[in-house]
Amino acid sequence: MYRDPVQSLEPLPSRPAAIRALRVGMIGIGTVGSGTFRVLARNQAEIAGRAGRPIELVMVAARNLVRAATVVGGNVPLTDDPLRVATHPDVDVVVEVAGGTGPARDWVLAAIAHGKHVVTANKALLAEHGAEIFAAARRHGVAVAYEGAVAVSIPIVKALREGLTANRIEWVAGIINGTTNFILSKMRDEGLDFAAALVQAQALGYAEADPAFDIEGIDAAHKLTLLAANAFGTSVRLADVQVEGITALQRVDVACAEQLGYRIKLLGVARRSEEGVELRVQPALVPASHLMAHVNGSMNAVMVKGDAAGVTMYYGAGAGSEQTASAVIADLVDVARLDGTHAAQRVPHLGFHAHAMSDLPVLPRAAACCAHYLRIPVHAASQIEAVSGWLAGQQVPVRQVALAAAQPGMGAQVLVLTQPVRQGTMDLALHALQAHPLVAGKVTALRVEELA
Amino acid sequence: MYRDPVQSLEPLPSRPAAIRALRVGMIGIGTVGSGTFRVLARNQAEIAGRAGRPIELVMVAARNLVRAATVVGGNVPLTDDPLRVATHPDVDVVVEVAGGTGPARDWVLAAIAHGKHVVTANKALLAEHGAEIFAAARRHGVAVAYEGAVAVSIPIVKALREGLTANRIEWVAGIINGTTNFILSKMRDEGLDFAAALVQAQALGYAEADPAFDIEGIDAAHKLTLLAANAFGTSVRLADVQVEGITALQRVDVACAEQLGYRIKLLGVARRSEEGVELRVQPALVPASHLMAHVNGSMNAVMVKGDAAGVTMYYGAGAGSEQTASAVIADLVDVARLDGTHAAQRVPHLGFHAHAMSDLPVLPRAAACCAHYLRIPVHAASQIEAVSGWLAGQQVPVRQVALAAAQPGMGAQVLVLTQPVRQGTMDLALHALQAHPLVAGKVTALRVEELA
Repeated sequence: MYRDPVQSLEPLPSRPAAIRALRVGMIGIGTVGSGTFRVLARNQAEIAGRAGRPIELVMVAARNLVRAATVVGGNVPLTDDPLRVATHPDVDVVVEVAGGTGPARDWVLAAIAHGKHVVTANKALLAEHGAEIFAAARRHGVAVAYEGAVAVSIPIVKALREGLTANRIEWVAGIINGTTNFILSKMRDEGLDFAAALVQAQALGYAEADPAFDIEGIDAAHKLTLLAANAFGTSVRLADVQVEGITALQRVDVACAEQLGYRIKLLGVARRSEEGVELRVQPALVPASHLMAHVNGSMNAVMVKGDAAGVTMYYGAGAGSEQTASAVIADLVDVARLDGTHAAQRVPHLGFHAHAMSDLPVLPRAAACCAHYLRIPVHAASQIEAVSGWLAGQQVPVRQVALAAAQPGMGAQVLVLTQPVRQGTMDLALHALQAHPLVAGKVTALRVEELA
Repeated sequence: MYRDPVQSLEPLPSRPAAIRALRVGMIGIGTVGSGTFRVLARNQAEIAGRAGRPIELVMVAARNLVRAATVVGGNVPLTDDPLRVATHPDVDVVVEVAGGTGPARDWVLAAIAHGKHVVTANKALLAEHGAEIFAAARRHGVAVAYEGAVAVSIPIVKALREGLTANRIEWVAGIINGTTNFILSKMRDEGLDFAAALVQAQALGYAEADPAFDIEGIDAAHKLTLLAANAFGTSVRLADVQVEGITALQRVDVACAEQLGYRIKLLGVARRSEEGVELRVQPALVPASHLMAHVNGSMNAVMVKGDAAGVTMYYGAGAGSEQTASAVIADLVDVARLDGTHAAQRVPHLGFHAHAMSDLPVLPRAAACCAHYLRIPVHAASQIEAVSGWLAGQQVPVRQVALAAAQPGMGAQVLVLTQPVRQGTMDLALHALQAHPLVAGKVTALRVEELA
């Protein structure tokens, strides 16, 4: 049996009595900031035991100092000047949880220029200014960590940047906006239309008074750009995402999808093909038997297909004070664990080192290929064969065709699931179909994602 | 607007032309080893782009050198002496994928003593010898990484050790054995009994010729000990796990669980309470509406409840050549990313630094508290009230009681779901119930996990 030669010579190293704490300056003490303060305080012993040293909040910048004082008490110095936190010599890491993009960009760049690591949960900031911020961080050798910017409670950035590094990632698909998933779940479970479900979401605090950012898919697009960059080693390109929200979604389509064995989810999808990368946020049909179809309420989930790991999925809350704090603090522990080394940039900001980033072309809408669901109002149920035959003649191969189950006040509707087809072909066919004498009303088209 | 003062002065650093590769010595070139070789070769550019340097296989130890040569070709030196790989000066990291516990322990300890990092997918080795191996690694300042040892394709060790570090973990519950989940899915979907489902699993390669290790729950217990140690900061204690496999499970109970709105899964559960830690592997009822109930076939999933993040879930393949390689290579990339620093032990082996580990007591069976499912054969359906009343008198509060739907050849059966109750109380009540004149046959008891 092998014996460790030094076993009896060298004692286990004990930790030094006083270890230098990681000193955190926080900008913003709203929902996320106060959650971070609370969790850092409540779990301080456990967090220090994991990090190897204490994580200490040494300074907070807030607009409303009176309100801030009620959160952090008398022991943390307060300032109303975020740049003071960003540049203060006693701060090792700046946590930016104030939100917004213009001023937040300035604070983050100032912190980086002063050699400080940055932790942020600000997806809009990174989606818009990520390229500039990450380049500055590379020059200064500091970490910019942002686990809280995507599907907050789920360590999905870590999974992509570190857990799945062996893989060529084929696609990422996520339910990455809790507000819209809550609304879609209500529409399905209670047969509500969009407007009624939105009112419920607002009443329960799942949607803002101005919900446009969520329901139009912008928030999901921000997150998708970060997921795609980490998956494929491309830069962050918000402008290239095709974005469609759920405001136009009708409850009849929720019911018809159900009839065909599908559920409708707002999916962010990033897919790599030989020709380029497809980036889109759209409501899509997912098979009812698929795990993603069972992600309900305000929960989030991200599915990743890698060539070695196969499909893996990550599920959890996508919003919330302490849920976001969980991600922010995990990023702080990552920084704290690099104590005494110069490997702050251990993990490249977007998963790949700068020299290995590729700028895969983003596919134009017409080039992307996907199966589709169509709901076609017709004058008579007997026209089902004619519709199906007409589509085949337009190079839209049909996989399944059915009549919609009768609903009050609704005329005959033909439901079609197509084979995968180029969006350009589909768009042309839809344009012609809408004008066809067979058709008695507005045709609805949604994408189908088998996620296999 | 803030301007980065060095933007125009300092060019982006370019990578040096030749970066020192991370040199890997592999022990074992079976299913996992050959998958690792294949993925390292296929994705070498992408992996190097993520790791910051190439990862190069420089030596392989195998029992059958002829077979090994057919896998790795002529470019990698082969040896039949694992200790040569473990101690060779040209090797930076030893990948142990040979399996087994005795000799593997010696090789791993030898590698550690020679200052080499170790990556292994050997759950049995770590469950049995983890304490000794991690202590040696701490002394020598090397990493021992083992993402591949638990639910291979899912980066769950990383999620627990790094992603959820802000949290006090309350419980971890996992479907962490693919063979048994395949068998249970077959039993439910096709109404098979255990023996018939096992035969199918063997025919399809989901179960070994000698399946005891999987179906008796031992494999799941190995993984659970590693999950629990990382979740709670306790040492690895295989002997403390209560283990019950699925060999005694009857298809009638699969059907009766379904009738009550539940599915049966082999769950590994680690739960922390004020009194201590509960560690058990058992078939348990999970609500059919719960995401874990939809983890089917040979797939694995682990759910974690943290006090800040709430519930998060991680899903993916639990076995397979390249699926395991995905985890092994992610561990190698982690090591490669520490290039030039002395932070090899950046993340403590079991999540917590040694001084912060706690030895929470493991609860004895009788002290654990859980809801139960009971199937009680009775002489007549009319006895349902009497059974329910009798249980209440034994301090077993009943939440739901029903008659089992008729099945061919089966007499009347009372189904009971209890409120959470101490296992000690339940065991006493079951003993008395079995002898009660109301009861017409063997009483079946299974635990119920709401996982809320």
